[in-house]
Amino acid sequence: MQNILAPYLLCLGNETQLTFAKTAKGILDWRPEKCRGQIGLEGCTVDLGLDDITIEQASSKGIKTLVLGVAPPGGVIPTSWYPMLFSALENGLDIASGLHDKLIDVPNLVASAKSLGRQLFDVRHPSQSFAVGTGEPRSGNRLLAVGTDCAVGKMYSTLAIEKEMLERGLEVDFVATGQTGIFISGKGVSVDAVVSDFVSGAAEFLSPDNGPDHWDIIEGQGSLFHPSYAAVTLGLIHGSQPDALLLCHEVGRTEIIGTNNYPVPELKDCIDVYLNAARLTNKQAKFVGGCFNTSSLSDEQAKHYLIQMQQSIGLPCSDPYRYGVAKIVDGLLT
Amino acid sequence: MQNILAPYLLCLGNETQLTFAKTAKGILDWRPEKCRGQIGLEGCTVDLGLDDITIEQASSKGIKTLVLGVAPPGGVIPTSWYPMLFSALENGLDIASGLHDKLIDVPNLVASAKSLGRQLFDVRHPSQSFAVGTGEPRSGNRLLAVGTDCAVGKMYSTLAIEKEMLERGLEVDFVATGQTGIFISGKGVSVDAVVSDFVSGAAEFLSPDNGPDHWDIIEGQGSLFHPSYAAVTLGLIHGSQPDALLLCHEVGRTEIIGTNNYPVPELKDCIDVYLNAARLTNKQAKFVGGCFNTSSLSDEQAKHYLIQMQQSIGLPCSDPYRYGVAKIVDGLLT
Repeated sequence: MQNILAPYLLCLGNETQLTFAKTAKGILDWRPEKCRGQIGLEGCTVDLGLDDITIEQASSKGIKTLVLGVAPPGGVIPTSWYPMLFSALENGLDIASGLHDKLIDVPNLVASAKSLGRQLFDVRHPSQSFAVGTGEPRSGNRLLAVGTDCAVGKMYSTLAIEKEMLERGLEVDFVATGQTGIFISGKGVSVDAVVSDFVSGAAEFLSPDNGPDHWDIIEGQGSLFHPSYAAVTLGLIHGSQPDALLLCHEVGRTEIIGTNNYPVPELKDCIDVYLNAARLTNKQAKFVGGCFNTSSLSDEQAKHYLIQMQQSIGLPCSDPYRYGVAKIVDGLLT
Repeated sequence: MQNILAPYLLCLGNETQLTFAKTAKGILDWRPEKCRGQIGLEGCTVDLGLDDITIEQASSKGIKTLVLGVAPPGGVIPTSWYPMLFSALENGLDIASGLHDKLIDVPNLVASAKSLGRQLFDVRHPSQSFAVGTGEPRSGNRLLAVGTDCAVGKMYSTLAIEKEMLERGLEVDFVATGQTGIFISGKGVSVDAVVSDFVSGAAEFLSPDNGPDHWDIIEGQGSLFHPSYAAVTLGLIHGSQPDALLLCHEVGRTEIIGTNNYPVPELKDCIDVYLNAARLTNKQAKFVGGCFNTSSLSDEQAKHYLIQMQQSIGLPCSDPYRYGVAKIVDGLLT
């Protein structure tokens, strides 16, 4: 698992809507120190507020990697981008892509990278192989985010936990398991792209033995309640062997995303199901808090809701975006 | 998903022990009508009792496919086999392999197959891509075998159920999800080799909509209690949407295979965990019987044990190898 070197030049492609540049936005939100500039191509109107830097200028600005942090239609790398990609390599940059299409499939790009001594990172597609999981206990401490559904703020919540712990001077690492997280961390594995036999093994690889005071804060994936993706989630749970589970939920979501009539579970049922799953590989697994996306509520409603939830599930509850995660970290450390 | 054409010529490689030819033995046990001959290479002393047929004779005997049904060290295709492989193609045979090494990686074999109009099947390695699972209900009926552990007789049990149902003139198909099963069926998908995001989708593909009286009898994989492989099992459960679950267990097994101190679960706990998992995608899922490998017991002990189990879990229980599965099929159809 090689590191993607920072600083980054964030490529915004041809995007006109911020939502299709949300990977780039996420990197900037969580690792502003890694982001030294932005580059838009024809028609691009998205502006992240970074300096506009050309490929030719990038190297002199100390930039190490061109990051493709947008979502063109179908995840395809447009052929109109090819000149930029070759130019990046020629100007001394590595390239990292979160697209479905692979950089290594762009004609001649691998040969060019090789001859120039540059790296290509297709972060959606793990390039290494993993052993099967062993289930053997490991030293150190692990927290894993799990959700009532997909896309309920698991990555945001774990990054907020990491940030809070870093600010308290604790030994902590965010462990990325999906593409945006990998750009943010600089390393990680897209576990949903790992062959099913090796998912728990990949999770074991990602959070190896560590010191007694160290915490790996592991980005969750999918949901045990999603009929499409629960296999990924279960392998990640078993391999992560979490000591601490963080429950994530979006207020007002009633139907599992992308399904027809699959209900979002009750929080108490959700807690039971995740605990049963986690305790196969870690008998001490327990929930340490709930992170809620309360964006559909007013400030007053949100505070009231969080108090209610805290009473209902008996865990510190917050909206990490609005109110931070200090009280969850307080609980985690006691 | 293309059919592997029968009749087969079973290649026994250089094996001297039947246990390393158990794939070939399994095919012969369950589909004797598909097995027209055997071929051993240098040093081979295993004999399945089939006619010894050379590659040159095979076509004139009506044989369509050379099946590599053995397990050489490391799953490697020995280079000493290469002449046989090319000769098979030249003599009009397709080749199907259950080895870890791929036929398509044997130098020039793909080109030879293409020019001769022959097929190569690497049954461990799915060559097709799958959609993500939808969780949408499908017509027809499905039974899935699940286990207290891996390697407890799930394939044997489902093949026994299929055979019993065929003998009763019912509409039934065995659905293969692993390599030996694929040779037996002639088609299927090694679901443990599918990328984790698509496991439930592959399972949906394998047991599509069908008539109201039709049963797909789906071979299980792994176990929800195995820390290495539970992800595969959960994706298969969700995608299969089983109406009927068949519990499989090996009597006397106390530790999960390949692990250090993971206990085999109590049957009642096992039933609860599988039902909870299955009911995400099929609210009507229920257990219909237990299949036990009682080979460690005497006939008298086994009968006594099965009566006890039947009382304990309230389901028809049998050892399919010793006593068949008639009473489980009786229950399934009422």
